[in-house]
Amino acid sequence: MTRFVDVHNMVRWVADFGPERIMREMVAYLESDFMRWERFDKVPRVATHTPFGVIELMPTSDYETYGFKYVNGHPSNPARGFQTVTAFGVLADVHNGYPTFLSEMTVLTALRTAATSAMVAKALARPDSETLALIGAGSQAEFQALAFRANLGIRSVRIWDTDPDAMAKFLRNVTPLGIDVTIATSAADAVAGADIITTCTADKTQATILTADLVRPGVHINAIGGDCPGKTELDPAILDLGTVFVEYPPQTRIEGEIQQKASDFAVTEFWEVLAGRSAGRTDAAQITIFDSVGFAIEDFSALRYVRDAIDGTDYYVDIDLVANPDDPKNLFGLVGALAPVG
Amino acid sequence: MTRFVDVHNMVRWVADFGPERIMREMVAYLESDFMRWERFDKVPRVATHTPFGVIELMPTSDYETYGFKYVNGHPSNPARGFQTVTAFGVLADVHNGYPTFLSEMTVLTALRTAATSAMVAKALARPDSETLALIGAGSQAEFQALAFRANLGIRSVRIWDTDPDAMAKFLRNVTPLGIDVTIATSAADAVAGADIITTCTADKTQATILTADLVRPGVHINAIGGDCPGKTELDPAILDLGTVFVEYPPQTRIEGEIQQKASDFAVTEFWEVLAGRSAGRTDAAQITIFDSVGFAIEDFSALRYVRDAIDGTDYYVDIDLVANPDDPKNLFGLVGALAPVG
Repeated sequence: MTRFVDVHNMVRWVADFGPERIMREMVAYLESDFMRWERFDKVPRVATHTPFGVIELMPTSDYETYGFKYVNGHPSNPARGFQTVTAFGVLADVHNGYPTFLSEMTVLTALRTAATSAMVAKALARPDSETLALIGAGSQAEFQALAFRANLGIRSVRIWDTDPDAMAKFLRNVTPLGIDVTIATSAADAVAGADIITTCTADKTQATILTADLVRPGVHINAIGGDCPGKTELDPAILDLGTVFVEYPPQTRIEGEIQQKASDFAVTEFWEVLAGRSAGRTDAAQITIFDSVGFAIEDFSALRYVRDAIDGTDYYVDIDLVANPDDPKNLFGLVGALAPVG
Repeated sequence: MTRFVDVHNMVRWVADFGPERIMREMVAYLESDFMRWERFDKVPRVATHTPFGVIELMPTSDYETYGFKYVNGHPSNPARGFQTVTAFGVLADVHNGYPTFLSEMTVLTALRTAATSAMVAKALARPDSETLALIGAGSQAEFQALAFRANLGIRSVRIWDTDPDAMAKFLRNVTPLGIDVTIATSAADAVAGADIITTCTADKTQATILTADLVRPGVHINAIGGDCPGKTELDPAILDLGTVFVEYPPQTRIEGEIQQKASDFAVTEFWEVLAGRSAGRTDAAQITIFDSVGFAIEDFSALRYVRDAIDGTDYYVDIDLVANPDDPKNLFGLVGALAPVG
């Protein structure tokens, strides 16, 4: 049987465990998988682009467990009452190829994206960072705020979005949780005094939501909204101001902020920082930029974590996804056995 | 909600509808999709190869509907009590990226593979074909026999497998259905007098289960077991005896029998035959060879057919795979709403 976590059970689990505990524990799984980065089978995700948006499959494997995520990105969805991003994911045993775990990943992707941001910022942002600027108040915003509080102790958030209702929603959601929110009047106002800047807008266009003149020394930029060919958020001049860290270069060069740069633009693979192979931040004035597009290993870590965390609980049900006849060469017997003819 | 067909419901549906009716109706869906081949987004499947076997994702889209299949191929599985091939598949709406249909595909892949074989043989085999030789009596064998009867009227099958138990299983399964079975003593004995030869063995090795001297004029060869790099079934000399038809050349050149040939070895894309763009069989003495590796569009057709065929029945259940908050920008509200803090 395959274990299945549907939306109802995922929501119940997140509410019961708490998103901050989850994103703290998930960071440990992420770090453990990033530390053994070289052991994974890695391919750029397989994307189907249409005028409406993109649908992607993101597989990876550590040769014991295989995992993949199905995910869409449709920037015009919210205007029509749909989620921009929906997703589900699967883990399977490599030794026999049987899927063992199926989970909704719309909520889980929001958690893993924010947990990945926090993991990277924990390594690259100035240790005395106190204030997070959020540009973009969509689905990802609250998860970012809580991931940064859970993993870096950040309690002060300055937020900007062109949609005032989205900012009001953010304020309504996180103020009761004890986060100090400032509604900014512009992107420039949001980043003024911020130690960390997260850009998380969803337009499928070459946008410039952050210009180079707004970026102060010592800041860590967490750029997560530029994640498709033709979809960027940063003034390309920003990429020359500091050190750019990425997940998986073959994918980021196509989808990330660095698609605006030459194909040999210097980047550091973040896993090398965790593994002690490359330097992270070297001084307090350095500008560090995480050009994050999301990579399959992050989903793999998130799925592994959920699978382990809910083992023995009632947050999943067993579903009958794999036909398993007594005689493996007699698949037909499954069908014929129910309908004898003669 | 997403409609979900589990193994139990798939088996119940196949038993109730009957595999022959299903494989006849499925051929109509396959033909309709092959006729509009050029409208599909096509990529070679994304394979993760390990010493145990392969796990693959096979996506495609006609830009209205997106589909993909997860499938494994583990030749040593039966010896350990597992299915060689297990699979499941998904359809999604392209306009918003939401998955609408999830189905087991272990049974369905067996049906679609046999239906594809029959569709191609219907176009390429001699119209007076009466006898099918089956080399390989594994999970696919009974489905082949029934697909050829349902679509071409074949009633006589000569079967050969190195495993006598597998042949006995085949005899036991299809004799009550009115198929005339001859247990052969060798591959040579099986193909003697046969009009159509299906090779469906599962070894993950360069095997030669059919040699050129056994191939008589006028025969149609349906080679479905060579479907991985390094996994072939035919003596390469056979490929020079007739005309080779394939599904999607970029995939077949890597995975099919023609991996034994130069990269410019002449092949005909089968969809062109159906669309009237290329010749199929031109005379009764011609040898036609379908070098079949399985392509994503076939799974797309099979999923579309099942989805349509079971609409309004109780062969599926609705599952909660996609989070859908009232305010699409308020995904966090789903979680927060259940756990108010403050």
